[in-house]
Amino acid sequence: MNSIAYQDQILPIEQVFRDPVHDYIHVQHQVILDLINSREFQRLRRIKQLGTSSFTFHGAEHSRFTHSLGVYEIARRICDKFARSFATKVEDDGGWDDSERLVVLCAALLHDIGHGPYSHTFERIFETDHEAITVEIITSPETEVNQILKKIHFDFPEKVASVIQKTYPNPQVVQLISSQIDADRMDYLLRDAYFTGVNYGTFDLTRILRVMRPYKDGISFQVSGMHAVEDYVVSRYQMYMQVYFHPVSRSMEVILDHLLKRAKKLYEDPDFEMLGSVSLLAPFFRNDFTLKDYLKLDDGVLNTYFTQWREENDAILSDLATRFLDRHPFKSVAFNSETDLPVIGHLENLILEAGYDPVYYTAINNSYDLPYDFYRPEQINNRTQIELVEADGSLIELSKASPIVAALTGKVRGDERFYFPKEIIKPASISEVNLFEPLFNEFTKYIANGAIKNPTTLQEELD
Amino acid sequence: MNSIAYQDQILPIEQVFRDPVHDYIHVQHQVILDLINSREFQRLRRIKQLGTSSFTFHGAEHSRFTHSLGVYEIARRICDKFARSFATKVEDDGGWDDSERLVVLCAALLHDIGHGPYSHTFERIFETDHEAITVEIITSPETEVNQILKKIHFDFPEKVASVIQKTYPNPQVVQLISSQIDADRMDYLLRDAYFTGVNYGTFDLTRILRVMRPYKDGISFQVSGMHAVEDYVVSRYQMYMQVYFHPVSRSMEVILDHLLKRAKKLYEDPDFEMLGSVSLLAPFFRNDFTLKDYLKLDDGVLNTYFTQWREENDAILSDLATRFLDRHPFKSVAFNSETDLPVIGHLENLILEAGYDPVYYTAINNSYDLPYDFYRPEQINNRTQIELVEADGSLIELSKASPIVAALTGKVRGDERFYFPKEIIKPASISEVNLFEPLFNEFTKYIANGAIKNPTTLQEELD
Amino acid sequence: MNSIAYQDQILPIEQVFRDPVHDYIHVQHQVILDLINSREFQRLRRIKQLGTSSFTFHGAEHSRFTHSLGVYEIARRICDKFARSFATKVEDDGGWDDSERLVVLCAALLHDIGHGPYSHTFERIFETDHEAITVEIITSPETEVNQILKKIHFDFPEKVASVIQKTYPNPQVVQLISSQIDADRMDYLLRDAYFTGVNYGTFDLTRILRVMRPYKDGISFQVSGMHAVEDYVVSRYQMYMQVYFHPVSRSMEVILDHLLKRAKKLYEDPDFEMLGSVSLLAPFFRNDFTLKDYLKLDDGVLNTYFTQWREENDAILSDLATRFLDRHPFKSVAFNSETDLPVIGHLENLILEAGYDPVYYTAINNSYDLPYDFYRPEQINNRTQIELVEADGSLIELSKASPIVAALTGKVRGDERFYFPKEIIKPASISEVNLFEPLFNEFTKYIANGAIKNPTTLQEELD
Amino acid sequence: MNSIAYQDQILPIEQVFRDPVHDYIHVQHQVILDLINSREFQRLRRIKQLGTSSFTFHGAEHSRFTHSLGVYEIARRICDKFARSFATKVEDDGGWDDSERLVVLCAALLHDIGHGPYSHTFERIFETDHEAITVEIITSPETEVNQILKKIHFDFPEKVASVIQKTYPNPQVVQLISSQIDADRMDYLLRDAYFTGVNYGTFDLTRILRVMRPYKDGISFQVSGMHAVEDYVVSRYQMYMQVYFHPVSRSMEVILDHLLKRAKKLYEDPDFEMLGSVSLLAPFFRNDFTLKDYLKLDDGVLNTYFTQWREENDAILSDLATRFLDRHPFKSVAFNSETDLPVIGHLENLILEAGYDPVYYTAINNSYDLPYDFYRPEQINNRTQIELVEADGSLIELSKASPIVAALTGKVRGDERFYFPKEIIKPASISEVNLFEPLFNEFTKYIANGAIKNPTTLQEELD
Repeated sequence: MNSIAYQDQILPIEQVFRDPVHDYIHVQHQVILDLINSREFQRLRRIKQLGTSSFTFHGAEHSRFTHSLGVYEIARRICDKFARSFATKVEDDGGWDDSERLVVLCAALLHDIGHGPYSHTFERIFETDHEAITVEIITSPETEVNQILKKIHFDFPEKVASVIQKTYPNPQVVQLISSQIDADRMDYLLRDAYFTGVNYGTFDLTRILRVMRPYKDGISFQVSGMHAVEDYVVSRYQMYMQVYFHPVSRSMEVILDHLLKRAKKLYEDPDFEMLGSVSLLAPFFRNDFTLKDYLKLDDGVLNTYFTQWREENDAILSDLATRFLDRHPFKSVAFNSETDLPVIGHLENLILEAGYDPVYYTAINNSYDLPYDFYRPEQINNRTQIELVEADGSLIELSKASPIVAALTGKVRGDERFYFPKEIIKPASISEVNLFEPLFNEFTKYIANGAIKNPTTLQEELD
Repeated sequence: MNSIAYQDQILPIEQVFRDPVHDYIHVQHQVILDLINSREFQRLRRIKQLGTSSFTFHGAEHSRFTHSLGVYEIARRICDKFARSFATKVEDDGGWDDSERLVVLCAALLHDIGHGPYSHTFERIFETDHEAITVEIITSPETEVNQILKKIHFDFPEKVASVIQKTYPNPQVVQLISSQIDADRMDYLLRDAYFTGVNYGTFDLTRILRVMRPYKDGISFQVSGMHAVEDYVVSRYQMYMQVYFHPVSRSMEVILDHLLKRAKKLYEDPDFEMLGSVSLLAPFFRNDFTLKDYLKLDDGVLNTYFTQWREENDAILSDLATRFLDRHPFKSVAFNSETDLPVIGHLENLILEAGYDPVYYTAINNSYDLPYDFYRPEQINNRTQIELVEADGSLIELSKASPIVAALTGKVRGDERFYFPKEIIKPASISEVNLFEPLFNEFTKYIANGAIKNPTTLQEELD
Repeated sequence: MNSIAYQDQILPIEQVFRDPVHDYIHVQHQVILDLINSREFQRLRRIKQLGTSSFTFHGAEHSRFTHSLGVYEIARRICDKFARSFATKVEDDGGWDDSERLVVLCAALLHDIGHGPYSHTFERIFETDHEAITVEIITSPETEVNQILKKIHFDFPEKVASVIQKTYPNPQVVQLISSQIDADRMDYLLRDAYFTGVNYGTFDLTRILRVMRPYKDGISFQVSGMHAVEDYVVSRYQMYMQVYFHPVSRSMEVILDHLLKRAKKLYEDPDFEMLGSVSLLAPFFRNDFTLKDYLKLDDGVLNTYFTQWREENDAILSDLATRFLDRHPFKSVAFNSETDLPVIGHLENLILEAGYDPVYYTAINNSYDLPYDFYRPEQINNRTQIELVEADGSLIELSKASPIVAALTGKVRGDERFYFPKEIIKPASISEVNLFEPLFNEFTKYIANGAIKNPTTLQEELD
Repeated sequence: MNSIAYQDQILPIEQVFRDPVHDYIHVQHQVILDLINSREFQRLRRIKQLGTSSFTFHGAEHSRFTHSLGVYEIARRICDKFARSFATKVEDDGGWDDSERLVVLCAALLHDIGHGPYSHTFERIFETDHEAITVEIITSPETEVNQILKKIHFDFPEKVASVIQKTYPNPQVVQLISSQIDADRMDYLLRDAYFTGVNYGTFDLTRILRVMRPYKDGISFQVSGMHAVEDYVVSRYQMYMQVYFHPVSRSMEVILDHLLKRAKKLYEDPDFEMLGSVSLLAPFFRNDFTLKDYLKLDDGVLNTYFTQWREENDAILSDLATRFLDRHPFKSVAFNSETDLPVIGHLENLILEAGYDPVYYTAINNSYDLPYDFYRPEQINNRTQIELVEADGSLIELSKASPIVAALTGKVRGDERFYFPKEIIKPASISEVNLFEPLFNEFTKYIANGAIKNPTTLQEELD
C-alpha cells in the first residue's frame, strides 16, 4: 500500500511540541515521531537532566527527555539553514549535503538515550557506561529504537551510532552533535539556565545559528559573530562554576554515592537480611545485568528503594537514605590537595571520634572543567577547536581572536572540597554541644572563609 | 541559651532560593526554614505539580515543592506590602494586623502538603482526600511539620490548619490563601505557564500586588487595577481551557485510572498471584493505610510498580502499564451527553467487538470549571467575590465593572469527551486493517471535526 | 549588465535588522532594502509611534520606523508559511498564490508612510489625512518610494496603494494588511507592550501564525487555535483601555491641540507678530502645503517651534508650549454626556472666573473603541469578521465560539473625560489658595472617585 | 501651614512610573517628584541616550530621561538594602548612614542632566562639556533644578554636584554613582540591551544588589557573588565591542561631525548667506552661548536645521545633511595606525581624484575602551577597583579572583577605522562605473576581509 520509502515519509501535518526554550519543537519525519514514541526514549521522561542539582536549584526538575528534544530541534534548524544557504554544489566544495539530515537528526535525538538514573554516581558504583549503553540501545535488535532505525536501512543504526562515537566520516555531521560548540551543549546551557532560573547560561542562539557555516573540515563561524561565540564560551564557563559544580549539589551526590555503596555492601553481606524487595536493582548489585534490566531503571525506582531503606536494620543505610530523601546535605570546605591533606586527615579523625564512620560520612570531591581548548597535536583525547572564518575563507582559531576565551583556554577550572556532616560544626541541639564541645572547637579552628585555613602553621601544630 | 521565642527567631542572614518565576524566594524566619527542611515538605519534590500534563507539555515537570515555595513567597510579599502601607491603627479599621504574618506564611507554605502522587486519579481509586490529609499532617503529632509548628505554640498547628479549612476568624488571612484570587492561584498560573511554555497564564503580578488592599471583610483591589485583575481572570480561564483540560493529558489520566483499577481488582482476586512486590501500595489496595503509609508514596513509587506490572501475567494490566509508561494515549472525541449517549453506546459495542474490554479501554471524561462567580447567598459552597474599591472606600463586585469577567461569570466551561484506543480508527499495521476493516469504517462514520457527528440522524439509523 | 528583473533581485546575503520584538527582521529582496533606505521611509524614524503616550509610559519612545519594519516582518513570515503549506494548486482552490508576496511585503512596509508628527492632533488642526498622504507618497512621481516601486512595473505603485485602500482584488492580500487581525495590529500590540513595559498586549504570535490559513474569501484560523485568537482580541482590548486611552496621554494631546490652535490663530492675526521663524510650519498655517512640505515635518520640527513659542509675546501660547514641553498635563474627570453636561458648564464658568480661557484651558475628550465585531450586512463601514475553520473546511465566526469575544462584540468601549488645569483643584502655592479658595471649594464639590459626582442632585442645586 | 521639612516630605501615596527594565520606578519623596517634573529634567526626553546608535539598532530610540530614572531606581534599591541590612551602628564602622539617601538619589537622578543633543560630536565641534554643564545646572540659581534642591538646604545643590564631581567626602556615596560598577553603568547596560534587543548586556542585577555591601572605603561585593560581578564586567565589554563601537553608528557620527563642521564654517564665512534661520544654534556658531541657550537644544532642534540645510546653496552641506537624515552611512575598514597610514594617504588621494573633499568625506575614527582596571597608584586618573569581601572582612581585588576579568584588565580594547563614501567601492549606477572604473579597481586592491590589506607589500608598491 505505502510505496514511499520510510526515510521519505513526511508527516502530512508537521507535528509540534510546545517547548519553553525553543518555543516549538518541529517534527516533520515519521521516523522522528516514531523514535520519540519509542519505549526507550519515553523512559528519558523519568530521568532528571541535572541529577542532584534540583536539590540546590529547585526549578531544575527537567528531564533528559526535554533536553533530547531540544538538541534535535537545534540540529534541525541548523540543517534547514545549511540546506538553504550552504548546499554543496560540487563534490568536496565544503558545502552541506542534505542527505545527511536524517542521520544528524536521529543522532541528535538519541545521543543521551543510554543515560541512567543519577548518571555519574550510578556509573561509578555499578561500573556502567552511558555512552556504551547509548550505542547498545541504538544497535541492539531488542530495542524499539533499533527496529525503527532499521526500517530506514539495515546499517542505519550503526551509522547513527558512529556519529555519537565520532567515527562517522563526515566531520560536519560529527561536529554538529559533538564538539566544543554543538547542538547538545547549546541546548543544555539554555535549558538548564531556563529551569534553574539563573541567567548566566543565556547566549544568543539565533545569532550563533546565523553565523554558523559548514566548511571542508567541519563547522566554522563567520568572524562577524565572534562575540556571540565568545559569549557562549563564557556562559558555559559560568554555568559550570555556578550551577554544575555547586557545592550543595555535589554534597547530595556524595550522600547518594555513599548510600549506594553501603547498600551494595549490605547486599553482598551474607549476614545482613534486607526486609524489602529490591528486585529491579538486584542485577546491578550482583553485577549481572542485561540491557533490559538497565532500561527498567529510572530516578523513581532508586528513590523507591531509598524509601524502603529508611526502615532497614542498618543505621548507616537508614540514615543516608533519610539524608538523601529529606535533603540533609553534608557541609563542605574548599581545600588544596597539595598542602592541606594532613589537615583533612586530622579532621577525619575528629569525625571518627564524634562517632561517624569516615568511609560513609566524609568525602573528597573534585570538580574540574576545561572550558575551552584548541587542538593540541601532541595530546591524546584532543578537542576540535572552534574556527572563525573570514570573508575570504581563511580560518582563525577562536582563542586567537578573543582575549576572554584565551584566558579560559587550556586551563582546568574548578575546586576540591572536603565533605563532612554539618552537625560537627553546627550542633543540632544544646545537649550535643556539651558532649562534643572540645571536638567542635578543634574542628572549627581549621576553617576560615569556607576553606581549610592556614595549612602551613597548622601542619606544624600537627607535627 | 537561646532566649528568643521561636516565632521571633529571624535568620541572621536572609536565606534565598533561586526561583525562575519569582527570581528569589526569601526566607527570614527560622520556622519557615525548618518547615522547608522537614521530611513531609521535602517529599513534595517527588510529586509533580501537574500530574499527567507533562505528557502533553513536556516542560511541565515541576513539582509541588516549587509551587509551595512560590505561594509562600507571594504571601510574604503581600504581608510586607500590607505591613508597610495598610497597617491597622485602631481596632476594626480594616487594616492589616502583622501579628498574622506567621500563620499566613505557614498556611501558604503547607496548603498542598497532603497531596499524593497523581492526586485526583489516586484519590478516586483509593478514596483518599488530600485536603483532609493536609490537615492531618499539620495536626498529627507524628509529623515533623507538626513538631515544628508546635514550637511556636501548642495550638499553632490548629490555627494553621483552620486557615486552610477556611474557618480562621480573620477573613483577610483566609482570602490570601484561598479565594478566587489568592496566593495559591496566582503562583500556579504563573508557574504552570512558565514551565509549559505557553503564555496564556501570564498576568501582571506586580501590578496586582500594588493594587491589593485589606479591608474589614477581606481583601479588595483598587479600582485603578481593575484591568489587571480582569486579565488574571482571563488568564486563569485560558489555562483551564488550554492546559489543564487538554484532551491528551486527560487521556493519560484515564489510562492511569484504569490501570490502578485493574491492579486493585487483581490484588483482590484470590486466584491471581502478583509476581512482584507492591509493599508500599499494598495498604491502599487493602484500604487499610496509615498517614505514615501515605507519606511514603510519590510519583516514582507508582511508576516503579507500573514498571513491574508490565511483566505481570495479566494482559490488561501489562498493556495499560505499557501505555502509561510509554505514553500511548487513548484517542478522544467531544460529545454532548444530552444527545449523543446512544452513539457512545454503539461505539462501545464496536470496541468490544474489536476485542477491547470497554471497562478498561473506554472512558467518559468531563472537565468543567467555573472561571469566576460572585457571591450567591442562596447557594451552598459559595465563593468569595472579588471586590474593587473606590477612592472613597465603596466596593464594586468585579463582574459589575468588567464585561469580560461578566461573560465568564456563573457559567461552567469545559467539555465532555469519550476516550477509546486509537487503534480503532488508526490501525497500527496493515494486517489489522484487513481483519477489522468493517468495524473501523463503521466507527469513523460517527466522528467529524473531532466530535461525535450528527447524532439525530445517527440515532435514527441506530433505531 | 544586470539581466535579472528588479522584482527577482534577491540579496546575495540576506540582510537582517536586530529587532527587540521579532529578534530579527529579515530582508531578502533588493526592492525592500531600497524602500527602507528611501528618504520618505527614513523620515519615519523621526515620528513616534505612540505620540503623547511616552509622557505616560516613558519607555514608549519607539518610532513608526520600527513598527513598519515589524509589520513587514510578520507579513513576510506569513507569506513563507503560506507558500510552504498552503500554496494554490488549481485555480480558485483558496490556496496562496506566492506571486502576491511582493505586493504584500511592500504594502506592509509602507502602510503607515503617510503619518505625520503627532498624527491625530495634527490632522485635526490642519485637516490633513495620513491615509490619503500614504497613497500620495506611493503614487506621486516626486517621491523616492514611487521611483523604486515603479522599477518593478509602471503600475506597481497603484497596486500597492490599492492594498492599503482595500480595493485590491485578492481578499487574502487585503486582510493580511488590514482586517481585525492583521500584520499591522499584531505588530503594534506586541511592540507597544514591549516598549511601554506593560504585558497586557502580549499574545502568542507564533501560535497564531501556525493556525492561520488562507481560504477563498481571505484569511481564517484553524479552530484548534481559537484560544490564541481570543487572547489576541482580549490583549487588543486591554491595550486600548490601559495604554492608548490613558487619561494623561490624552491630556497631553489636549494641550497640544490647544497649542497648535492658538498658534494658528495668532499666525492668522495680522496684529500679532511672531518673533521666531516658523518656516517649515507656515504652509500649514496658510493651508497651502505640498507633499514636499509635509515630508519635511517630524516630531522634532514641531518641538523646535514649541521651544521658540515659549518666548513669544502671547501668554497663552507661551504657557501652553511650556506645559507641553515640560509635561504639565491637565487634570481630568470622567463624566457622562447624557447627564453631566450642566455640571461641566458650571465648572467651565468656575475656570473662567479663576482667570483661564476655557477655549484653551478646558476640553472634552472622548475615546472609544469597538474591540471586535462580526460582519453586519446592514451597515456601511463594515468589518471583516474573524473566521475559524474546522477540519472539514466549515467556518465559524469567532464570537460564536468564544464567550469572551462575544462579550466584547459590537459594543464600543471607552470613556468621556473633562480636562482642566490641575491648579484649580491643587493649588501650586499657598498664596493662590487664599485668593481663590471659594472657587476651589465649589469646584471640588462636584468630583468624587475621579468622576463627576451625583449629577441629578447637583443639577437641582444649579437650577 | 506645612510644617514638615521639605526633605522629609514623603508622598502620601508612593508614585510609580512603569519601566520596561525595572518594572516600576518608585518615587517616595516630594523632592524627587519635583525634580522629575522640572524643566531641565523633562528636556532629557528629547535627547536620545545612544545618539546615532539607533541608526544601527533601530529599537534604541530611548532617551536620557528613561536612563536617568533607571539610575535613580537602582540607587534607591541599594539604599533600601543598605539601610535594612548594613546600617551603621557606631561611627566609622563602615556601615551605611541613611541620612545620605537623599543626596544619593538626587545625584543619581541628575548625573546626566547636562547632556546635550548627540553629545560627544556636539561637544567636539562646539567645545562644550556636559559634565561641567551638569554641575552648572545643579548649582546655577537660574534653573528649576537648583531652586528645588535649595529648598532642602542652601548648600544642598553643591553637595549633589560634589557627588557627581567625585569630591564628596563619603566614598560609599561617590562609588554608588560613579565607579567601575555603579548605578549608572548598571542601568545603561541593561537598558541599552533591552532597547537594542541584543542580550549581551544582560547580567544578574538582583544578585549583584544582594551581594553588594558598604565598607569603610566604599562599596564591596561578597565573594560568593564573584561570578555575577564577573558576568557584569564581561557584559560591559561585550556592549562596547558590539553596540557602542559599531562601525555604522560611528559612521553616522562621522557624518554628523562633518556636517556641523561644514555648517560652522559656512556660518563664519561672510560670503555665504544661509537661507533659513538657525536662531537656536547661532549662539554656538558664534561661540557665545549661555546656559539658557544650551537648555533650548535637543535632538529635534538639530534635525530641524538639518532639514533646512538640505536646501541650502552649498553642495557639501546639503549632501551631508541628506546623508544624515536619510541614513546613508560612509563605508569603513579597520586599519593599524602603526603600519597602514601610507595606504590611508593613498586612499584619500583616490577619493580626492573621484571628486570628494577628503576633509568632509573621509575620517579616521578610533574607539577604545578600558573594560576594567585595578587601582594603579602611579597613575593619574585612577580607577576605584572592584573589591570582593570574604566572610571575615578581608578584601580581594576582582581581577585577582577572576581569570576572565584578569584577561580584560588594564588593556584598552577597540579599533581604528578609516571612513569614506561607499560609492567609491560600490557604484550607485552603471554610468559611474564606466567613468571611475580605474579608481575603484585601485581602491579595492587595498581592502580585504573588511580591513586594510597587507600593508608592507603595499607600502613598497607605493614607494
